[in-house]
Amino acid sequence: MNLHAFDVIRKKRDGEELTDQEIRYIVEGAARETIPEEQLSAWLMAVFLRGLSLRELGTLTTAMRFSGEVLDHKGLGRKTVDKHSTGGVGDKTSFLVAPLAAAAGLADPMISGRALGHTGGTLDKLESIPGYRTQLSLAEMRHVLERCGASIVGQTKNLVPADRRLYSLRDRTATVENPFLICASIMSKKLAAGLDALAIDVKTGSGAFLRNEDDANFLAALMVETGERAGTRTVAILTDMSQPLGRFAGNWVEIEESMALLRGERNPLNEDLREISLVLAGWMIHLGGKAANAEEGRAIAETNLMDGSALRIFREMVAAQGGDVHALDSGEAFHRPKFRRIFRAEKSGWFAAADCTKLGWAVQRLGAGRERAGEPVEAHAGLEMHTKLGMKIESGQPLVTMFAEDEARLAEPQELLREALMIGDAPVEPPPLVKRIISAENKNTFLNAAQRT
Amino acid sequence: MNLHAFDVIRKKRDGEELTDQEIRYIVEGAARETIPEEQLSAWLMAVFLRGLSLRELGTLTTAMRFSGEVLDHKGLGRKTVDKHSTGGVGDKTSFLVAPLAAAAGLADPMISGRALGHTGGTLDKLESIPGYRTQLSLAEMRHVLERCGASIVGQTKNLVPADRRLYSLRDRTATVENPFLICASIMSKKLAAGLDALAIDVKTGSGAFLRNEDDANFLAALMVETGERAGTRTVAILTDMSQPLGRFAGNWVEIEESMALLRGERNPLNEDLREISLVLAGWMIHLGGKAANAEEGRAIAETNLMDGSALRIFREMVAAQGGDVHALDSGEAFHRPKFRRIFRAEKSGWFAAADCTKLGWAVQRLGAGRERAGEPVEAHAGLEMHTKLGMKIESGQPLVTMFAEDEARLAEPQELLREALMIGDAPVEPPPLVKRIISAENKNTFLNAAQRT
Repeated sequence: MNLHAFDVIRKKRDGEELTDQEIRYIVEGAARETIPEEQLSAWLMAVFLRGLSLRELGTLTTAMRFSGEVLDHKGLGRKTVDKHSTGGVGDKTSFLVAPLAAAAGLADPMISGRALGHTGGTLDKLESIPGYRTQLSLAEMRHVLERCGASIVGQTKNLVPADRRLYSLRDRTATVENPFLICASIMSKKLAAGLDALAIDVKTGSGAFLRNEDDANFLAALMVETGERAGTRTVAILTDMSQPLGRFAGNWVEIEESMALLRGERNPLNEDLREISLVLAGWMIHLGGKAANAEEGRAIAETNLMDGSALRIFREMVAAQGGDVHALDSGEAFHRPKFRRIFRAEKSGWFAAADCTKLGWAVQRLGAGRERAGEPVEAHAGLEMHTKLGMKIESGQPLVTMFAEDEARLAEPQELLREALMIGDAPVEPPPLVKRIISAENKNTFLNAAQRT
Repeated sequence: MNLHAFDVIRKKRDGEELTDQEIRYIVEGAARETIPEEQLSAWLMAVFLRGLSLRELGTLTTAMRFSGEVLDHKGLGRKTVDKHSTGGVGDKTSFLVAPLAAAAGLADPMISGRALGHTGGTLDKLESIPGYRTQLSLAEMRHVLERCGASIVGQTKNLVPADRRLYSLRDRTATVENPFLICASIMSKKLAAGLDALAIDVKTGSGAFLRNEDDANFLAALMVETGERAGTRTVAILTDMSQPLGRFAGNWVEIEESMALLRGERNPLNEDLREISLVLAGWMIHLGGKAANAEEGRAIAETNLMDGSALRIFREMVAAQGGDVHALDSGEAFHRPKFRRIFRAEKSGWFAAADCTKLGWAVQRLGAGRERAGEPVEAHAGLEMHTKLGMKIESGQPLVTMFAEDEARLAEPQELLREALMIGDAPVEPPPLVKRIISAENKNTFLNAAQRT
């Protein structure tokens, strides 16, 4: 049968359900560049405004997944698991959960991204370790996985080429913030990595992309549905992003903070990071078949965190990917930004609320992130939070320390901090860290709720 | 203020109303090619699915109208009027109403289009007259208008360039059939022609683009609203297109049929064409200020049709544009298609219904039309209808005569005729010729009705 992009656009425009063949035709046309951009973008806008059925979404995700090369872990002898985050500020759970999964006898082939806008990037953080190579060939990645059980790398050019083209178009045509398109983009890449299980950290709150809780629940349920349909055990964990996760946000400072936790250190200012990492790792271990339930998985993870197994694996992985383990071990001493400036409380009270997106932009402006793809970032720029939501504040007390390589970089972030941090007159209860778990068992509740509206 | 296409797309995507500045930015970006196609097409799909307010539509139409050169009739000494048709089969009213308007002391600067798909094109029909030039410069057109009061030409490259780019995109991205975009496209071109008054023939029925009557009413009301807002007196006349208009559909055959009417001949098989032409001309004459109301305008038109004034003007116009008036006068004798085939009734009864779009495709397949822009057409291809809806039919009676230059061209149209013409067992009442008139007085009823749904 002869398909035409025009007819597929028209059908979706009119709210009709597309056939599997029609969806595959669009995806193949995107990957092979046989459908021109003006037609793809009209189709994307029609999908944005008309939505997709669960079958359409599954077909779209699968077609995108197989639009290029896919990872194959046959013969590895371990089940493969991974986590994904919808993006936050100070979110460094990757450096904890990947070695925790490996320590439990699983393998984590993690394909990560770079900083963009107000959110940081796992690859940029890892590249602050001198020598660390994020661009491995699939053979090299396999080698690291065999040796360490975890490897964190950048996306290769041939993985999910349909998403590359569609995402670039979405970025130009205001068709990014749609749950179906977000789900297909994320899940096609994660499924192309050949995972047995996946835990997705869906951020909510002032620093998250999705501010509305119903939207976050719906996206989470879509991803669980799509993962499970494709044979990957999937869970979505809705976590709080109304303040930075842990103490630090930036590049090297986040590696160092992760190392401290891997060394077994505890600090009230990053108990949130530790807790969310253990919950994610617990689910990965459970869905990967190494624990009867998530609680048992969490207990295994905590043991491996406290006995140094995860630390050993992380150090091995860094070394296997060319990173300087000596720098890694020297911790705080290695952190030498040219400029530091303390931002202090202007009044006494309680740390009541944060505009976490603004805090993320402060990190970006300090030099740790980028506004546009391709811009360089600085390894030692970033900030340290000296307080958490709900804590008591004395006037003049340091709230944040900023780090930058250029003094001129400090002015704008200081203004952003002033706008972002709110001190109230009464104690407040910080939001719960884990708001909700959406798994195969309860996903339909959230899918049906969305369809009713 | 710095505008970005991305932000304007997002705003319309979310159903918000755009500012005048934002709309002008998009139109200018389309005309000057400073906004890329993928962004324009995402914007078009967002408009298609979200709609426009009347203010947005007015601004869009005006911005498109002034995106290139516009006609200026200062010093002509006559008010300028025109008609537009949404496209039908056998629709040759242009050849009657233009000279009828001129005969009433008005001027009709008619800019017409070509055959596409199942509908014919005024320019193709005129070019079946040997020598007739449709591509005049604006100065040449002005000269013809001064001499004859009517000139029918093709669109120049510099007229409404924004529509040229947007229409080409709509054609590729399934964003054609939307009342707001159709209105802006039609009205920007008609307003760029500098008209004092405009009568729009909105076709309804099986041969029309808009089959649904509410859609046709809404489009008609939008066009009246947009014309009147821009200072052009505008009326929309909803007419029946459930069968070809008049006796002939094709190119030369339609010129010849118009000549017969201009010579004052009457025939029950084309009373519909004569009636609709007089109604349209009556409104043009009334809105152009030459008659107190449309009925009086129609009476003036009928007088000028029967006394030969309109015929004289049409012959002068053809001559002024290089056309062979001798051929024009030789009528039927000049019609020498290589092949003729009669399609006969397979049973007796009453001509009950026609799929007029299929009849239009039959005309196209015979060689009179084109499937894609740029294809050549044949001057003497086409068909003649020997019956009208509601007439009694005897088995074996000729229903249609087909004309073609190539015998192989006859087979497919014959099949289309078999599917398109339905003979019933009982007499039927043909639909009324003029279904409704939408003018400045009653337009709001149809605009409000649409907004309620």
